[in-house]
Amino acid sequence: MSSQHPSIKENWFTELSDEHFPGQGFSLKVERILHHSRSDFQDVLVFESSKYGNVLVLDGIIQCAERDEFAYQEMIAHVPLFAHGNPKNVLVIGGGDGGVIREVVKHDCVEKVTLVEIDKTVIDLSRKFLPGMSCALDHPKVKINLCDGFQFLRDVAHAAIDEKYDVIITDSSDPEGPAEAFFQTEYFELLKAALNPSGIVIAQASENVWLNIDYLRRLMRIAHSVFQKADYCYTTVPTYTSGQLGLIICSDDCRLSITKPQRHPSKREQDALKYYNPEIHHASFILPTWAARLINDRNANE
Amino acid sequence: MSSQHPSIKENWFTELSDEHFPGQGFSLKVERILHHSRSDFQDVLVFESSKYGNVLVLDGIIQCAERDEFAYQEMIAHVPLFAHGNPKNVLVIGGGDGGVIREVVKHDCVEKVTLVEIDKTVIDLSRKFLPGMSCALDHPKVKINLCDGFQFLRDVAHAAIDEKYDVIITDSSDPEGPAEAFFQTEYFELLKAALNPSGIVIAQASENVWLNIDYLRRLMRIAHSVFQKADYCYTTVPTYTSGQLGLIICSDDCRLSITKPQRHPSKREQDALKYYNPEIHHASFILPTWAARLINDRNANE
Repeated sequence: MSSQHPSIKENWFTELSDEHFPGQGFSLKVERILHHSRSDFQDVLVFESSKYGNVLVLDGIIQCAERDEFAYQEMIAHVPLFAHGNPKNVLVIGGGDGGVIREVVKHDCVEKVTLVEIDKTVIDLSRKFLPGMSCALDHPKVKINLCDGFQFLRDVAHAAIDEKYDVIITDSSDPEGPAEAFFQTEYFELLKAALNPSGIVIAQASENVWLNIDYLRRLMRIAHSVFQKADYCYTTVPTYTSGQLGLIICSDDCRLSITKPQRHPSKREQDALKYYNPEIHHASFILPTWAARLINDRNANE
Repeated sequence: MSSQHPSIKENWFTELSDEHFPGQGFSLKVERILHHSRSDFQDVLVFESSKYGNVLVLDGIIQCAERDEFAYQEMIAHVPLFAHGNPKNVLVIGGGDGGVIREVVKHDCVEKVTLVEIDKTVIDLSRKFLPGMSCALDHPKVKINLCDGFQFLRDVAHAAIDEKYDVIITDSSDPEGPAEAFFQTEYFELLKAALNPSGIVIAQASENVWLNIDYLRRLMRIAHSVFQKADYCYTTVPTYTSGQLGLIICSDDCRLSITKPQRHPSKREQDALKYYNPEIHHASFILPTWAARLINDRNANE
């Protein structure tokens, strides 16, 4: 195998970022490179790893690995979907790999899922190299929109798209490149405008408490400035930096307790889940003392 | 800085193990090597990292980094100490860096702590390079025994040492090298023999659910074969493989609910803690569905 990617040396892929996680790196052994290209939006790499299955990398950052992807997809999908009493119409922004979609369609009550993905390359590569994730992209409940998620939400806000959602899941890449606008106040305001009254939104926070907790605090402050309720939870994913990823969940329904499920999975639904269960739903909101103090302190100066 | 250690290349330390976590690696940027030697028992490295403070490495495996060590020390110490109603006499096996000791002496009810460490080099280096961890090694409640933990427990079992313990904490290195015997049935039997009737023992499991869950199942089966109660919990530590480490906690007191604290920290005690709180005590026992099923399934064939 030749080393065709700048992040691969001597058959090891290494994720490094001087900007986002300086001084630490995570490596996976590469069996072979399956794809490398520059799409209209980002650098796209897919490789077969020795122990984590096929791995999708965008702009040098691991997006998903077949072995542990369920930990992320299940939590970002099922925490808001079970916190909601009866979600019918679901919007997924980003996530062209299809992993979140696969989880959403497991809910019998969900009638329609709209996937908004800017980069068709991600969908095409997932169909080819991540069949366990892309398997629900052709599900009859799923509609795919190839466009910018931000613009899509603007169209919803300006009634160019006449639809509101019960749950919106922002499964974006990190806040540089095409997903940069997904971490600003205007984006949260557009999310709010696209929600039904008891709707819930969840967004991957691109950070965790061990990395850039100041960034998480800012993001939580934005969320609190727009929504009545905002909470932070996390999921453990060994191929993500520091082994975990934060999720920010918001709602304007004050009666809603988003840290606990409103519905419990049926036996059939629970049998289809590998990570999520009602206990871990609640436990994922429990933080180490120092992190809880910083993230939940809305009056702190910076 | 010259690269004086086989795990350091171009100023990056990389933790690799074909045996224990093949196909993945974690790297920390090295500012300078502070110490490298071969003690009577193991290869010992201390380096200053760029973002995680000083780091202690034994036989190529990261033992602790100043920035995140509290996540491990607090959980392995306070989960059993708060699960116990009134711990007075505490034994710590391994942990010559002093981090666990520092946490144990925060409990006003604890009257005596015995530290059993086989490798004096670890204690000496911690005093020199990890002052925030070794700070309690000279605490008046602390007694240090420089000997093999296994032999120490045998002496207790054979009444050569006339003492029993309320809480025993096994803060060993991984099950190769000097700590190999700490992961076998006989060790758990010796732990049991050294406990007071309502005593609690906790041991670092050297693995986590994402790495070698079969090994954890075997370890849990050993624990269940010796103790009335055995449970698995974990703590998140970014410099440990896959970002988390498992802990196995056991007791012969059937009335005890070790997954919840019997005592709550006083305000003064809680103010001294950065990671542990009563909510995270319980949450640390909640596992993803697939892991809970495998770890708690005592009848599974292998």
